[in-house]
Amino acid sequence: MKIKVGIIGATGYTALEVARLLQSHPNAEIVAATSRAEDGKSLAEIHPSLAGRLDVPIEMLDAQRIAKKCDVVMSCLPHGASAETCKQLVEQGTRVVDFSADFRLSNRELYEKWYGVTHPWPERIGKTVYGLPEFYADAIRDADLVANPGCYPTSVILPLAPLIADGLIEADDIIVDSKSGVSGAGRSAKVATLYCEVNESIAAYGVGAHRHQPEMADLVHRIGGKAISLLFTPHLTPMDRGILSTIYVRPSAKATAADLLKRWESQYADCPFVTPVPHLPSTKHVAGTNYVQMTARDAGGRIVLVCAIDNLAKGASGAAIQNMNVMFGLDQTTGLLQ
Amino acid sequence: MKIKVGIIGATGYTALEVARLLQSHPNAEIVAATSRAEDGKSLAEIHPSLAGRLDVPIEMLDAQRIAKKCDVVMSCLPHGASAETCKQLVEQGTRVVDFSADFRLSNRELYEKWYGVTHPWPERIGKTVYGLPEFYADAIRDADLVANPGCYPTSVILPLAPLIADGLIEADDIIVDSKSGVSGAGRSAKVATLYCEVNESIAAYGVGAHRHQPEMADLVHRIGGKAISLLFTPHLTPMDRGILSTIYVRPSAKATAADLLKRWESQYADCPFVTPVPHLPSTKHVAGTNYVQMTARDAGGRIVLVCAIDNLAKGASGAAIQNMNVMFGLDQTTGLLQ
Amino acid sequence: MKIKVGIIGATGYTALEVARLLQSHPNAEIVAATSRAEDGKSLAEIHPSLAGRLDVPIEMLDAQRIAKKCDVVMSCLPHGASAETCKQLVEQGTRVVDFSADFRLSNRELYEKWYGVTHPWPERIGKTVYGLPEFYADAIRDADLVANPGCYPTSVILPLAPLIADGLIEADDIIVDSKSGVSGAGRSAKVATLYCEVNESIAAYGVGAHRHQPEMADLVHRIGGKAISLLFTPHLTPMDRGILSTIYVRPSAKATAADLLKRWESQYADCPFVTPVPHLPSTKHVAGTNYVQMTARDAGGRIVLVCAIDNLAKGASGAAIQNMNVMFGLDQTTGLLQ
Amino acid sequence: MKIKVGIIGATGYTALEVARLLQSHPNAEIVAATSRAEDGKSLAEIHPSLAGRLDVPIEMLDAQRIAKKCDVVMSCLPHGASAETCKQLVEQGTRVVDFSADFRLSNRELYEKWYGVTHPWPERIGKTVYGLPEFYADAIRDADLVANPGCYPTSVILPLAPLIADGLIEADDIIVDSKSGVSGAGRSAKVATLYCEVNESIAAYGVGAHRHQPEMADLVHRIGGKAISLLFTPHLTPMDRGILSTIYVRPSAKATAADLLKRWESQYADCPFVTPVPHLPSTKHVAGTNYVQMTARDAGGRIVLVCAIDNLAKGASGAAIQNMNVMFGLDQTTGLLQ
Repeated sequence: MKIKVGIIGATGYTALEVARLLQSHPNAEIVAATSRAEDGKSLAEIHPSLAGRLDVPIEMLDAQRIAKKCDVVMSCLPHGASAETCKQLVEQGTRVVDFSADFRLSNRELYEKWYGVTHPWPERIGKTVYGLPEFYADAIRDADLVANPGCYPTSVILPLAPLIADGLIEADDIIVDSKSGVSGAGRSAKVATLYCEVNESIAAYGVGAHRHQPEMADLVHRIGGKAISLLFTPHLTPMDRGILSTIYVRPSAKATAADLLKRWESQYADCPFVTPVPHLPSTKHVAGTNYVQMTARDAGGRIVLVCAIDNLAKGASGAAIQNMNVMFGLDQTTGLLQ
Repeated sequence: MKIKVGIIGATGYTALEVARLLQSHPNAEIVAATSRAEDGKSLAEIHPSLAGRLDVPIEMLDAQRIAKKCDVVMSCLPHGASAETCKQLVEQGTRVVDFSADFRLSNRELYEKWYGVTHPWPERIGKTVYGLPEFYADAIRDADLVANPGCYPTSVILPLAPLIADGLIEADDIIVDSKSGVSGAGRSAKVATLYCEVNESIAAYGVGAHRHQPEMADLVHRIGGKAISLLFTPHLTPMDRGILSTIYVRPSAKATAADLLKRWESQYADCPFVTPVPHLPSTKHVAGTNYVQMTARDAGGRIVLVCAIDNLAKGASGAAIQNMNVMFGLDQTTGLLQ
Repeated sequence: MKIKVGIIGATGYTALEVARLLQSHPNAEIVAATSRAEDGKSLAEIHPSLAGRLDVPIEMLDAQRIAKKCDVVMSCLPHGASAETCKQLVEQGTRVVDFSADFRLSNRELYEKWYGVTHPWPERIGKTVYGLPEFYADAIRDADLVANPGCYPTSVILPLAPLIADGLIEADDIIVDSKSGVSGAGRSAKVATLYCEVNESIAAYGVGAHRHQPEMADLVHRIGGKAISLLFTPHLTPMDRGILSTIYVRPSAKATAADLLKRWESQYADCPFVTPVPHLPSTKHVAGTNYVQMTARDAGGRIVLVCAIDNLAKGASGAAIQNMNVMFGLDQTTGLLQ
Repeated sequence: MKIKVGIIGATGYTALEVARLLQSHPNAEIVAATSRAEDGKSLAEIHPSLAGRLDVPIEMLDAQRIAKKCDVVMSCLPHGASAETCKQLVEQGTRVVDFSADFRLSNRELYEKWYGVTHPWPERIGKTVYGLPEFYADAIRDADLVANPGCYPTSVILPLAPLIADGLIEADDIIVDSKSGVSGAGRSAKVATLYCEVNESIAAYGVGAHRHQPEMADLVHRIGGKAISLLFTPHLTPMDRGILSTIYVRPSAKATAADLLKRWESQYADCPFVTPVPHLPSTKHVAGTNYVQMTARDAGGRIVLVCAIDNLAKGASGAAIQNMNVMFGLDQTTGLLQ
């Protein structure tokens, strides 16, 4: 019997990516999809790439009805709204993977400072597992609610956390310069993400003020066991998908790039998607996949880490399915080897 | 003394292109710019590529005030709204280049059928010069109002009109398959022109129903002296700028591609921007310029015409400045050789 | 037990796409890969997107050795060279899917006229099944050698053949205007396909002279039972993948677009990948998938057909795996639902 | 009378950009163009965007003949080869702007270490003016030979040099993360810059080992009067043109981003192309222009500088024409306001 999956907030790119990936998942099927804006249509009418493949009607969100139909719900709602719905769904007895930032951080203060809203379910902040199976597979297995990681944080936590844990790099001098494809900005109609605004152009945004900065710092701290200081600058890059994070760190003691690579190899030996590589990875090397490629280079007294992921796959919907696989006792890679 | 130019509806891509081109025009300067949405800002705040180069405040549209300040006004308003404003401006004694379709067609019926609005100044339909100096330079010279051509029509009328006039091709079997960059769709916030919707994708739209189809047919008829039947399919192409029109025609008598090329060479010998070429032109060959490249190929009993323009330059703002040059007695190429 | 697959000529984009698709195929595995240029490397060194996923050493092509190892070989060699190798492989007892054009056409004269080489295995021209399971599944099932279809032809034969077969459209007035992503041009170092040559640009090429034109005409004739006259113009479009074919046909009798759509629906009711749709398909709707979307529109006395495929998937490697599935008694969709 | 310009090595993108910019230059004209590979063709045959606009025959390089024809020569040859030719041209009495790195560095040792060749004209290293008129206009005015700056260095020296000179930032902790369009990689046939390799992808390259790193450090030292330590990571970005440099610096004393901006405003008050801006610049804001936009942001104890240029214009050919303007007593902006 297949896992029954619901998608809440089905109009965006992460929802489409969930649907795309579940098309070929042998043990799961989409049984419900909701959208306030598109009620009455079908999922394939909103996303014509699903035409002839999926025939799920879009319905209004009714937590009770959805919970009854679904073994697990992917919540693609915006922050704030998502926490509220997750609460209802969990209370109705279904399990939830939450794509929003609502349950990622360690505490309410940090969340409310960066997100500027009152948290609708504060009891669960700091008590909800962060959906990186590379570190938290056990807790994910039994979770009723999983906080699916942010896209940029995934590309930063995976390379940094084991290095901090082992003291191979200095904790107080970390610069993260990330480049993301445009799908990370979502699918709502905004002049800023029109084709002719961002095509043939690269730009920094949210310098030192992006909400993923505290998430990175918080998680590296939790996993690595040491508070870190990190400066994060994201850039909007003219491509659909992909994140490349170039991370400037100072080695501790006499650690070299080779030492870091070796550390990753041992850390991630049993993690099917994390691939330390000798070459400099490009986002194309991981496009459309759940894989993570990362490398390290000695340069001018620092070490430069480069990590590539697909922001929609491992950075969002692929990770969600990986989490679902863990939650339901499947192999992590089920349906994700494409 | 420089020509004083006003831009009405200054937030879009054609307005920006007018500003870009006038930056280096030796005989003209922008003295006014209006936008209802952006009143109070400066032109460079809306279009940051003008930062440090142009310092024109955005004002609300007041036809009397604008007419007083400007020798010529570029109206980048949408159809319907544009005609109304053009009327006021012309009545106030300034000259106008109208980017909208309001004065392009031969008669009111055709306009109202395709545009679905009552024309605000019907006396001027069919009595306003069509702004192709390649055919109408004399009338443009003295015009108070010029109907700036549509982008697709420019790429079709220039190759077809002289061939129809000379009877080199059949008038009743013409297929136009055009490919346009995304800037042709304008700068308003729509999901359909978000980067991630159109990037890495090509699609047809408005098959046989695009408003530029009657404009092409009407103008080729007026210039060539013979009614034509034409089927037009535009395609949205993942690039900022450029139109490539591939036109399938049947030769009359025994005309060959070489004959057609020769005809163009003689027709456009004194037209500085129209360039018949032996190679198959790409949109990149004319990107950012006011030039038109066109060629012809014999194939399977038909002749295939290929014409490349920049939709924002010769397809809109470059043409407008070319028209302005003619209106004010300057060489057509002034400020347009870049 | 898994089907053992070999890839001959493993450096190009179609080879990489075969590898990408076989990653998640439940019943097949790559056991050999050859390349003259890259002997001694591994497949993942040539294609870094496979790093950590596939560990197949590149070897020199030795037909005997490959045939022994493989149940089926994907030949990604260029025409001429491919036929020679296919002959050896088949004679050694392995089955082959040939990506080249060597066995696609009905007869040797047509082949040698358009390809300008003497055919190395003329006995098999006209006697090798054309790898469109939508029409030839039975023959493919038992084939030792399958001629994998050309990318453009796939996007043209699928919509046209049933319409010609039923006499719904005129056979002597068909214009095909196709737009392809750049991967169709292959992966060899040429100035013409450098990023800065083709990015932000669209251009026609090979007008009326492209080798896929006779393939389209030949196959529509064979399937539809009537000789056709067809003019084909391909265009290079600034995107990695995808083909959109816009096809201008004249309806016979009183056929309408709706009739054509109905015809397709019945023709392809049991073909899992062919999807007649009401909307105008874009290449993005099928990107990375083996699906085909097609629609029809009445316009100006003609009917405009629009068909979208992914040139690397259904246009090459996806089709090859679909063929392999049929050859080995698997469901056509196995490993291809992504 | 117009300045007579020759272009040596006319097949590449910088040569085309020189030609494009000189099209509309009121005081200069191209009188000669050379290329070993394309001898016998015309410039417009190599670069079809010049068709109908420029009619310069390509000739073999003969320094004596070129020197006789030209007031100034733009040398677009590769390093090593360029120095040799520059020597001949200067000795023949013509003036030269050298696009290669041959005369940019302060001394022969540094050059030979990073470029791995014996310098063909070592007497002139350290004695040739660096072509940044923002700092060296006086020396450029009288120069027989100008070392045109590297693209990346231009985007780094302009923001950094005045801050180092004034002690506003620490000299020993500077990280430069740059993103460049693909045209910077040149126009020779290489798999690595094929469309399908770099499209939809971003990647770092040459981490800490790019030849522009010593150029940046050397020039900031020369202009700012203090040795600096700088780590440079370039990234290949999927766009034709543009460089965005994100520079991480530590403020000295209590300098803030606002102080740095103020410093730039005073430094560049008389430099027509350098524009400190309040917004975060994108490469699109300066695309196709000679302008430089730069800003600064306080973030986490550091200041993040962001500088955008067009790599082909201000990063190469625009700078060369700006230098030519200075050399011939013209206003710096002549022909460069587009």
